[in-house]
Amino acid sequence: TKSYNITLLPGDGIGPEVISVAKNALQLVASLEGFNIGFEEMHVGGAALDAVGVPLPDETLNSAKKSDAILLGAIGGYKWDNNERHLRPEMALLHLRGALKVFANLRPATVLPQLVDASTLKKEVAEGVDLMVVRELTGGIYFGEPRGIKTNENGQEIGFNTEVYAAYEIERIARIAFETARKRRGKLCSVDKANVLEASTLWRKKVTALASEYPDVELSHMYVDNAAMQLVRNPKQFDTILTNNIFGDILSDEASMITGSIGMLPSASLGETGPGLFEPIHGSAPDIAGQDKANPLATVLSAAMLLKYGLGEEKAAQRIEAAVLDTLNRGFRTGDIHSAGHKLVGCKEMGEEVLKSI
Amino acid sequence: TKSYNITLLPGDGIGPEVISVAKNALQLVASLEGFNIGFEEMHVGGAALDAVGVPLPDETLNSAKKSDAILLGAIGGYKWDNNERHLRPEMALLHLRGALKVFANLRPATVLPQLVDASTLKKEVAEGVDLMVVRELTGGIYFGEPRGIKTNENGQEIGFNTEVYAAYEIERIARIAFETARKRRGKLCSVDKANVLEASTLWRKKVTALASEYPDVELSHMYVDNAAMQLVRNPKQFDTILTNNIFGDILSDEASMITGSIGMLPSASLGETGPGLFEPIHGSAPDIAGQDKANPLATVLSAAMLLKYGLGEEKAAQRIEAAVLDTLNRGFRTGDIHSAGHKLVGCKEMGEEVLKSI
Ligand SMILES: CC(C)[C@H](C(=O)O)[C@@H](O)C(=O)O
Ligand SMILES: CC(C)[C@H](C(=O)O)[C@@H](O)C(=O)O
Repeated sequence: TKSYNITLLPGDGIGPEVISVAKNALQLVASLEGFNIGFEEMHVGGAALDAVGVPLPDETLNSAKKSDAILLGAIGGYKWDNNERHLRPEMALLHLRGALKVFANLRPATVLPQLVDASTLKKEVAEGVDLMVVRELTGGIYFGEPRGIKTNENGQEIGFNTEVYAAYEIERIARIAFETARKRRGKLCSVDKANVLEASTLWRKKVTALASEYPDVELSHMYVDNAAMQLVRNPKQFDTILTNNIFGDILSDEASMITGSIGMLPSASLGETGPGLFEPIHGSAPDIAGQDKANPLATVLSAAMLLKYGLGEEKAAQRIEAAVLDTLNRGFRTGDIHSAGHKLVGCKEMGEEVLKSI
Repeated sequence: TKSYNITLLPGDGIGPEVISVAKNALQLVASLEGFNIGFEEMHVGGAALDAVGVPLPDETLNSAKKSDAILLGAIGGYKWDNNERHLRPEMALLHLRGALKVFANLRPATVLPQLVDASTLKKEVAEGVDLMVVRELTGGIYFGEPRGIKTNENGQEIGFNTEVYAAYEIERIARIAFETARKRRGKLCSVDKANVLEASTLWRKKVTALASEYPDVELSHMYVDNAAMQLVRNPKQFDTILTNNIFGDILSDEASMITGSIGMLPSASLGETGPGLFEPIHGSAPDIAGQDKANPLATVLSAAMLLKYGLGEEKAAQRIEAAVLDTLNRGFRTGDIHSAGHKLVGCKEMGEEVLKSI
């Protein structure tokens, strides 16, 4: 029988609660589909700062690198908010992404019929939204050099960062986006600011040049300011969105809020080779941590992405996805997605119901 | 009697139609309030490219610099979309902003009770939204050097831009924002990405340092990805938003779409001294240009901002604002904001009704 190693990074806040649910789901589908999973649980973020004084300990990174895939809960909390930049929990995330070279961040934003009322958008605008943001994750202004704060000749402090993309970085993320669009509804919208930024001009040129290799995909381009508007005006117009690291950070969060159910949304970060990093898009929610109130479904669905994209266990992934829908159809809701007529449950109970559905 | 010079820049698409309406409104309130306005009408954008081959002719810039204030219609159109970067209509806007040193861009986003249904957000989320984005307009990645596209040692093309802010640039825009918040509901939210970017770390530090000078203003900070979400989740939480050039571009467009009536929203761009630049936030809408379908109210309200911020003619500004509300209350709507039970009018007729209301 096949056997996989998964590094679990529960992290901070509600991280441990939601990871524990997802771990149970992984274990159950593995036994049903006839493969083994070995788990290694490691500290990351604030938990690692508290334990060993750095946000990403070497042992954690080594475990992650050796694994077949990584499942992360959440990172950060008030406690570490005033730490210096290099001692902030989020640094673990940036270092992990860089070290694992997971340049392709896939962030679906789907409005499930069961949860359409959770959106702040009118029902007719929200229903049927089903888009995927493909965000470049290891380049651009997040990693560009030079960067820093210096004092110039006039005694003025200057803060600076560099937005930079090489052709190969654009091309490899664009290929992932074209392939993603091809498996979806065949529409790809590349978002940039080519009317102002040279980095975007190159981006647009390189993306456009690849289009002839994907004749079945309809490519369009949109400026980032317009994209931020169109997501509010008519999110259904989008299928797959390709964009850079910083625009992807902004637009994927906007898109996820449009669904109204952030507690439901998973993400995958993939490289060319090596293990992928899978995590819910929500944060560590320190205000409800440890109270059994968190919605574990985003992490459970991240585990499904892990099975599909990380291990190639498509059938196991489908089992989990179907179980999540079934659990919703049976009326179970955590507080964040609860509405009249449904059964309010905590994190643990939601997890148990998912296992029953599986 | 006082006398002012205004440079009118109709520009492209629906620009000339909406400017003509706003000009009439300015002339009427001037005569009612007892001052004179001299208008100088100049080419800009695509119109300038067609007329003299550059997007911002010297005569246009000189007229603008000598004026007391500038009113701009709209810039751009399909015709020039494939021009090289320096021959694109939008370049006129960037050059104008830089040359006039109008570093402070004020962009209100208000949901009028009369138009709450125009928003794609649910009524209870949209109603009462009344926020102001204060966007830094002459710095950051829009103007930062080095920038460009080069080929490196490995034959790779590299596109790069520089996000850069000096302390004084942050402080002067922050002061405008604190003062704006003070005149509104006393809440200022500064938006940055200080968990990732050093330019944002300096931004946050400098904004925070000024807070003690404005004890009546409540300052908070928010990451840009979260701000993009919160604008969708609960836009009413915001009063005044302060942010940099690129984040302001994205968030102000998102905020304006949340109101659902982009055809209603004005903007002002102000410097330390010298004339301000006033323009509707909508684009040139080439698909409806010349068909008498445009909504002139954003430009009329931009003229009101011009009177208030540009000329200090507060009473004349209030006359225009009141007239716009009165025209809406009398049931007149252009196509973009029309709904059942209201009188559908064209651009010209809407202009005439505004004049009647004045
Ligand atoms: C925590 C932060 C560094 C991170 C980012 O900006 O990428 C987060 O917002 C995300 O999108 O995963
Ligand atoms: C046209 C473009 C250069 C401009 C900008 O990015 O500033 C526009 O989007 C705006 O916000 O005024």
